[in-house]
Amino acid sequence: MTLIQSRFPGLRETIRPTTFIEASRLGRRLGVRLTLATETFQHTGSFKFRAAYNVAARVAPNRIITASSGNFGQAMAYACRLLGKSCIVVMPSTSAKVKIEAVKEFGGEVDLVEVAAKSRKARVEELACAHPDAYVASAYDDPLVIEGNASLGAELAGYPAKFDAVIAPVGGGGLTSGVIKGLRDSGAQLRIFGAEPLLGNDAARSLRAGHIVANRGEPQTIADGARTVSVGEHNWAWLRDGLAGIVEVPEDKIREGVRLLFSLANLKAEPTGSLGIGALLTQPESFQDASVCCVISGGNVDPAVFAGILSA
Amino acid sequence: MTLIQSRFPGLRETIRPTTFIEASRLGRRLGVRLTLATETFQHTGSFKFRAAYNVAARVAPNRIITASSGNFGQAMAYACRLLGKSCIVVMPSTSAKVKIEAVKEFGGEVDLVEVAAKSRKARVEELACAHPDAYVASAYDDPLVIEGNASLGAELAGYPAKFDAVIAPVGGGGLTSGVIKGLRDSGAQLRIFGAEPLLGNDAARSLRAGHIVANRGEPQTIADGARTVSVGEHNWAWLRDGLAGIVEVPEDKIREGVRLLFSLANLKAEPTGSLGIGALLTQPESFQDASVCCVISGGNVDPAVFAGILSA
Repeated sequence: MTLIQSRFPGLRETIRPTTFIEASRLGRRLGVRLTLATETFQHTGSFKFRAAYNVAARVAPNRIITASSGNFGQAMAYACRLLGKSCIVVMPSTSAKVKIEAVKEFGGEVDLVEVAAKSRKARVEELACAHPDAYVASAYDDPLVIEGNASLGAELAGYPAKFDAVIAPVGGGGLTSGVIKGLRDSGAQLRIFGAEPLLGNDAARSLRAGHIVANRGEPQTIADGARTVSVGEHNWAWLRDGLAGIVEVPEDKIREGVRLLFSLANLKAEPTGSLGIGALLTQPESFQDASVCCVISGGNVDPAVFAGILSA
Repeated sequence: MTLIQSRFPGLRETIRPTTFIEASRLGRRLGVRLTLATETFQHTGSFKFRAAYNVAARVAPNRIITASSGNFGQAMAYACRLLGKSCIVVMPSTSAKVKIEAVKEFGGEVDLVEVAAKSRKARVEELACAHPDAYVASAYDDPLVIEGNASLGAELAGYPAKFDAVIAPVGGGGLTSGVIKGLRDSGAQLRIFGAEPLLGNDAARSLRAGHIVANRGEPQTIADGARTVSVGEHNWAWLRDGLAGIVEVPEDKIREGVRLLFSLANLKAEPTGSLGIGALLTQPESFQDASVCCVISGGNVDPAVFAGILSA
C-alpha cells in the first residue's frame, strides 16, 4: 500500500475540533464533574469522519468501497467528495431512507443488498473483484482508522482541565483505540474506560478472557453504532492494555443517557453516543466526584426513534 | 443606583463563549452559507445568563426580584448564586414543574402566583414593597441587560468569517439590541435582522410605524421566549435604526426550524431559538447564497413538546 502524505489538506486542517461542553447540571445529577467532548457537530455528525478522511487521503486508490449502514458510510462518502475520489457504500436494502439519502447527499454511491440473500461482506467482495483498483475500507480495523481517531485523543490531551477518566463508546474499538493512541502520543496519562452495550459485550468479555471474543451475531442493541460482532485485531492491540476497564451498559441506561443529555445538557446524541452517560448511570460508584470526560461519539438518530426515547 | 464594577468576576470571565457551528448540510438545504451561534450550551441553557449576570453583578442590592416563567428566571437564580445574592422569581402557578424545579435547582426562591387572581406584575410590586432594598429586574428593558447581551455581539464581531447577515430572535428586544450594541462597540458593520413570531409581530409593526406598538395581549406562539407584549423602551432606542429588518415567522416555520436544526445540524433548540431558521424558511429570497449567522438563543424545551414537534 502506498501512502500519500502531501497531496491533500491534512487531517487537522480538515476535521472540525471536537466541541467541549462543561455540563455542570448533568454532572451534578451524576455525581461527577462532567465535561462532554461531543462529535455531534463533526462533519457528517459523528467522529467517523476523522477516520474516514484519514483513510481516504492516505491510500493511493481513487475509489473506496465500504460496508456501512450508518455513520462510517456518510463519513467516507463526504471524505471522498472532499478528496475528489469516488465511494461505494454497501447498505442493507432495509436501511432507513434518511440514511440512504444522507450517503447520497454526501456524494456516495449506494449499493443496496438484500441481506437475506447475500451478506454485506459477500457483496463487498463482489464489488472488490469488479473494481480491482479500489481500496476496501474497514470502519474500525485499520491502522489508518486508529490514526485518524487519534486526532481526538490529541484534543483531549490538550484540554486545559485534567480529567481523572475519559469514557468513550466501544463498538469495533476504532474510537477507543484511537483515543488511547492519541493520548499516548501526546504523553498524557489519563485513564480510559470503554462503554459498551451489555447486549453486545464482546469487548468486555475479551478483556476478561485476554483474547478477542466474538458475539454470536450482530447484537440488537439500540446503540446501533455498537452492533459489531467483535473488536478488530488492530484495535485489540491497543485495547488489551490501554483500557482501564469497560462498563457494560444495559439498554434502559442507554436510553436514560439520551434523555439526560437532552434535558440537562441540551445535547442531541444518538444512543451510541450516550453510552458514556449510560456508563456513569450503571457504575456511579466507580466515578464518584471524579473529573470525567465523556466522548459523545455522534448525533445521527432518526427523529421517530428519538421522539420515542423522549416519550418513554 | 450605585454601580459596582470590581467586586465580582467580570462578565467575560464568567459567561461561556457562544458555540459556533458551521452547519453546512442545513445551509445547503436553506440556500445559504450558514453558521450557527448557539447559546444552548450557555450557563442555564440560554443567552439570558449574559444579561442576568451583568445585572446581578452591577447593581448594589443583594436581593433581586424578577418575574419570569422561563429562561430569565433560571439565569437570574444562577447568577445570584454565583454572586452570593438572593433571588425571588415570580412564576405563574401553572408553570411547568420542570421549570419551577430548574429555578430552585439554580438556587432561586420561587414565588408562585395565581395569575387569574393577581397579575405577575402586581405580585412583583407587592414583593418590592416587602423588600424595599431589592432590585426589581426586567428581563429585557434595562441598559444593563443590553450591555450583558452586547458580549454576544462582540463575539460575533470577532468571528473569523464575515457574515452578510446576522439573524436573531426578537421578543422584548433585549437580545437584538444587545447584539447591535456589541457589534457597534466592536466597529463591525453587519446587517442584523430580527426574527419574530408572526403571531406576536409587535416589533415588526413598531418598525413600520416608527414607534413602539404593543400586542393586545401575550401572544400564544409556540416560541414562548417571544411572548412579550411589546419591546422595551431601552431596546427600542437600539432597534429602531439598528435593525435591517424583521422577518415575521409563521408558527409552522418555527416548528420546521426546530426539526431542521435537529435533523440536519444535530442541534436541540427550543422553538424561540429556532426563529432564525424559521426566518430563512419564510423569506429565502432575502438571504439567497449569503453568509448568514443565526443566533440560536436557547435550548430549554420540555421533552414532550419537543417530541410532539418531531413527530408532527
